[in-house]
Amino acid sequence: MSIAVYPGSFDPITCGHLDIIKRSSRMFDEVIVAVLNNSSKRPLFSAVERVRLIEKSIAGLPNCRAMYFDGLLVDFVKQQGASVVIKGLRAISDFEYEFQMALLNKKLNPDIETLFMVTNANYSYISSSIVKEIADLGGNFADLLPSEIYEEVKQKIEKGR
Amino acid sequence: MSIAVYPGSFDPITCGHLDIIKRSSRMFDEVIVAVLNNSSKRPLFSAVERVRLIEKSIAGLPNCRAMYFDGLLVDFVKQQGASVVIKGLRAISDFEYEFQMALLNKKLNPDIETLFMVTNANYSYISSSIVKEIADLGGNFADLLPSEIYEEVKQKIEKGR
Amino acid sequence: MSIAVYPGSFDPITCGHLDIIKRSSRMFDEVIVAVLNNSSKRPLFSAVERVRLIEKSIAGLPNCRAMYFDGLLVDFVKQQGASVVIKGLRAISDFEYEFQMALLNKKLNPDIETLFMVTNANYSYISSSIVKEIADLGGNFADLLPSEIYEEVKQKIEKGR
Amino acid sequence: MSIAVYPGSFDPITCGHLDIIKRSSRMFDEVIVAVLNNSSKRPLFSAVERVRLIEKSIAGLPNCRAMYFDGLLVDFVKQQGASVVIKGLRAISDFEYEFQMALLNKKLNPDIETLFMVTNANYSYISSSIVKEIADLGGNFADLLPSEIYEEVKQKIEKGR
Amino acid sequence: MSIAVYPGSFDPITCGHLDIIKRSSRMFDEVIVAVLNNSSKRPLFSAVERVRLIEKSIAGLPNCRAMYFDGLLVDFVKQQGASVVIKGLRAISDFEYEFQMALLNKKLNPDIETLFMVTNANYSYISSSIVKEIADLGGNFADLLPSEIYEEVKQKIEKGR
Amino acid sequence: MSIAVYPGSFDPITCGHLDIIKRSSRMFDEVIVAVLNNSSKRPLFSAVERVRLIEKSIAGLPNCRAMYFDGLLVDFVKQQGASVVIKGLRAISDFEYEFQMALLNKKLNPDIETLFMVTNANYSYISSSIVKEIADLGGNFADLLPSEIYEEVKQKIEKGR
Repeated sequence: MSIAVYPGSFDPITCGHLDIIKRSSRMFDEVIVAVLNNSSKRPLFSAVERVRLIEKSIAGLPNCRAMYFDGLLVDFVKQQGASVVIKGLRAISDFEYEFQMALLNKKLNPDIETLFMVTNANYSYISSSIVKEIADLGGNFADLLPSEIYEEVKQKIEKGR
Repeated sequence: MSIAVYPGSFDPITCGHLDIIKRSSRMFDEVIVAVLNNSSKRPLFSAVERVRLIEKSIAGLPNCRAMYFDGLLVDFVKQQGASVVIKGLRAISDFEYEFQMALLNKKLNPDIETLFMVTNANYSYISSSIVKEIADLGGNFADLLPSEIYEEVKQKIEKGR
Repeated sequence: MSIAVYPGSFDPITCGHLDIIKRSSRMFDEVIVAVLNNSSKRPLFSAVERVRLIEKSIAGLPNCRAMYFDGLLVDFVKQQGASVVIKGLRAISDFEYEFQMALLNKKLNPDIETLFMVTNANYSYISSSIVKEIADLGGNFADLLPSEIYEEVKQKIEKGR
Repeated sequence: MSIAVYPGSFDPITCGHLDIIKRSSRMFDEVIVAVLNNSSKRPLFSAVERVRLIEKSIAGLPNCRAMYFDGLLVDFVKQQGASVVIKGLRAISDFEYEFQMALLNKKLNPDIETLFMVTNANYSYISSSIVKEIADLGGNFADLLPSEIYEEVKQKIEKGR
Repeated sequence: MSIAVYPGSFDPITCGHLDIIKRSSRMFDEVIVAVLNNSSKRPLFSAVERVRLIEKSIAGLPNCRAMYFDGLLVDFVKQQGASVVIKGLRAISDFEYEFQMALLNKKLNPDIETLFMVTNANYSYISSSIVKEIADLGGNFADLLPSEIYEEVKQKIEKGR
Repeated sequence: MSIAVYPGSFDPITCGHLDIIKRSSRMFDEVIVAVLNNSSKRPLFSAVERVRLIEKSIAGLPNCRAMYFDGLLVDFVKQQGASVVIKGLRAISDFEYEFQMALLNKKLNPDIETLFMVTNANYSYISSSIVKEIADLGGNFADLLPSEIYEEVKQKIEKGR
């Protein structure tokens, strides 16, 4: 059985992320959306909240599930019995960093492959940071997030202002 | 009447910025230099000071004026009756980010166009951060800023050291 | 009166080109689509045919017209009483080359400005070469060209096969 | 059953290509190395020869085979019952072009996904063209090709000089 | 006598850095590894510690030595009687920034040249930050650092956790 | 004695090339400008003419000389008793290709180092091809070439038209 891990911060999950998850779910038997529980950054949503927002968004995709992880990505991938990491690419600067991480992860565990998918052109300008920035400035971000989580994210951001 | 908005942090305005403003002022009836009043970053100069430094630098350009704004750029542009955003490009990494913002702003308001100009090759290495860094380390930055504001910026930085 | 020149090979004009022309026509009093009559390359369509295909595509845009030119772009721009060159950017490699040409044209004539617009994300993968390649291999390219010229281009390419 | 297609010119297959094939063969049930039979370019080796050189190189990989194809890649992929295209990435300029082709192929057939793998750092400077150039100039290229085909390629190039 | 300065943060020195130092030591009479004592960033190792870690790593290279410096790089280079700055390049994003700094330093002192070397492909994914991140997450980083300093760095990071 | 080789097509030498040669001549005991005698391309000037044009341009630089070479660059460098290759970088696309060649040459001969210098910002848009293109279209290219060779290049291009 082929299992793919799609790692990220997902603070929160966007339409661009969801597009990658849907497309991955058609290629692999199982897709694990892996939320990086990075203690040093200050996320808007806690790791637990981020997992729940993803779960709401992928409710219609039976072979996908969300988890959070600490530690090295390659160790998490191995624990899950997976051997593939999925990453979405939007642009060059993405690519440079991801290229470096893919070579590094190959060094840390040669059995794990990183596969890159090109983000849908319609979502190429979306990122979690940009969603939060627009929301914070009072802009309309309804089209940038999965519809299932829009209200919840909106309320959280309005409270924080 | 065609109005263009040239947005940025301008902390402080550099020779590279001034070159873009001058060249824009020949193409558009009016150019508004729009200082982003971003509360989350800690600028060296307040938004009010930054507007004043720009005003000093553009004193000889009758169809240019400086303002600061909060909120979304596209909303500010619309309020001013403008439909064009001007951005200067120095290098690839500039381009990547600006490309993303242009697509995003097009999504937020399809009536507003972003136009990019190439920074004069002589100013391609100048940015506000680099000016501050050189100044902070005691280097000579007289050629990097509009001559009208050099003394004021120098004094501010020497006080802060 | 502000006149902009949008130069290129246009062999043939694509939906991506047409999008740039439409958006430019809202910003400038007049837009001249300028077909480079480059004798050294072997275009699929002659300069005269390329101008005609553009004319068909821009029939609904009263302030736009198509012409071909020989010689230096900056000289043509000056002859037309224009001072602005419009270029669409799809990607980094586009940008590198166009950046170089913009600096060069600035050197050849400092009064002429090059303004860059970001290609609509939906058209980011379209170019004249790709349209011809797909058509040549029997693929469906109806969505990639202005509908007004699709049949004519299709027949030309089928004859050539 | 998951089938992946790895397309290219392979004129001739290099160590970099073989590395991608080996790594793909561990992720997919079957890997088809697809030689583009492009009539307009003048390859050093004919499509039939290129397929045979690949076959020699992948003799130890039971779930891989080589074929050549004409026409659109997406049509070939569909005919083979595959839904995944594999591409190796060496560098930015690769990425730009491949990004564009991936978006285009997605447009031509939304069911087909392009997955990118990062070329092993040790092979990042190898390409078929560079192998031929070094060989043509009398340099040592033994380490750049699969050992199974080195002698054959060497003889061909020496004859051609 | 030709003296080259190789500046950086070196927090800590990696195998990639050491490779550049070794290769530089064959081209120049003397190589000064110059540790930037940047007070605004919070390094893991103090400037004094970083110099000592470098000294341990370059013990076998008689024409290399380590120093730390404050202030402008070009002033330090001049004080040392050197006229060459060496920088290693791993990737595009490196290059963009370094290109800008080289032009700036040329402006600050036209007598000083910046020379770029390409990082060994095997070390292209290594940086001080990545070493610290892997170490912090409990991964194996023995191959990423000079063997002479591995134990010391490991203990420092384990204490800090 | 340190000898550096600066290789290229130099068809013809430009102000950008001459700037790199001058700056190199201050760092190395001897600089050999090495004209690639590539039989497959059709240069405007023969290898002998290109060497002569360089000789005219570097007449004032006693430690520089021009030669042409066939075969592998690394072999030529070794024959000349040199161990350093100098390359000028104008932009990213330059860098990508040059990065690949530097890694390849390191593989072909580990004793030879490639050093990159950043082209003067004022010359960043100049290349031999662009000079020839402008000249061919009747534009003014006097500032783009060493003054010593301008007349000769002009006459050659005017004859060829």
